[in-house]
Amino acid sequence: MDQDTAAPGSLRPGGRTARVRESVLRVAGDLLAERGFAALDLTEVAARAEVGKTTVYRRWRTPAGLVTDLLAEMAESSLPHSNTGSLRGDLLANARLVAKTLTDTRQGPLFRALIAAATGDEATAAALHGFYRTRLDEWSPVVESAVARGELPRGTDAHAVLSAVSAPLYYRLLASGAAIDDAAVTAAAEAAALAAEAGVFV
Amino acid sequence: MDQDTAAPGSLRPGGRTARVRESVLRVAGDLLAERGFAALDLTEVAARAEVGKTTVYRRWRTPAGLVTDLLAEMAESSLPHSNTGSLRGDLLANARLVAKTLTDTRQGPLFRALIAAATGDEATAAALHGFYRTRLDEWSPVVESAVARGELPRGTDAHAVLSAVSAPLYYRLLASGAAIDDAAVTAAAEAAALAAEAGVFV
Repeated sequence: MDQDTAAPGSLRPGGRTARVRESVLRVAGDLLAERGFAALDLTEVAARAEVGKTTVYRRWRTPAGLVTDLLAEMAESSLPHSNTGSLRGDLLANARLVAKTLTDTRQGPLFRALIAAATGDEATAAALHGFYRTRLDEWSPVVESAVARGELPRGTDAHAVLSAVSAPLYYRLLASGAAIDDAAVTAAAEAAALAAEAGVFV
Repeated sequence: MDQDTAAPGSLRPGGRTARVRESVLRVAGDLLAERGFAALDLTEVAARAEVGKTTVYRRWRTPAGLVTDLLAEMAESSLPHSNTGSLRGDLLANARLVAKTLTDTRQGPLFRALIAAATGDEATAAALHGFYRTRLDEWSPVVESAVARGELPRGTDAHAVLSAVSAPLYYRLLASGAAIDDAAVTAAAEAAALAAEAGVFV
């Protein structure tokens, strides 16, 4: 296997390779959170991760390649869904989790940077979409349970319901700049529940 | 007035200044749509706009300064709100307009680039929020009319209702990558209407 022919961000198995990846991706995440995607520099990542510059350039090639691999790693670590026994309880738990992430001092800027990176690179965009698909899959059982309990119509699209919870919070983060506060969290969960109950997402 | 002391993107009145601004911002928009924010280069903007490089660097200073001024210009040109006589009709018209913008071959990539630029610069973020505030203000009468007609409870927050229409479409553009199609447009308008009627945005 010739590493030079591997796609940017691809991974060879093995202890040292895994350790290098872990430390490079941790540093990349830190730098993205601190200064955004436009300032991400592979030489600086290598220095802060105490990894050879050549290794970083060979394996990840570009800042976009690094972000793409970071998103792949993030998709591997799932956030388990809640099971409160009611649709409203579960959607509120989901809205709170999304809001906690987006308002976190590291995670908020990191997510903004990841989304910015995805606007300019196809592979990064595909990795971002894959990350959200994984998150939505993890939480889909809360919608399926609500259907089974008779709270939602059969054939309700779980991803659509969960996207409806997240969307207003992301819109605040990325577009309007309005506060992601308790009122926004409650409204996001309640609006998604009402629409789902009315069959908008069937 | 010393131009060197002006803030990036600030504008001196006058015919030539206005013409230079118009052509520089048009080129900046084209380049952002074509290649994204990370590739925006002031020297290239100057060359394509046929404006002196020194003028562009003096007036806008940085790519972020240029994007900030472009957003200010975009906020000046409003898209008049609809008046269909019903809340659902107006929210559907709004959802269609947002979807048309985000799926347009020039406007879609341009909006992604503007949002990416705002993730890394405070002044650009403020200009982006100002742009969305202006758009929401322009369309607020559709919510106020619905309140006056008795379709919505008194005290309904017009910006919250209109943001609820836009948010799922932006979430598709920026996060999930799901298609911005007719089904998405209808669901966005209907979900926002149901939540507003139930008093979620009071």
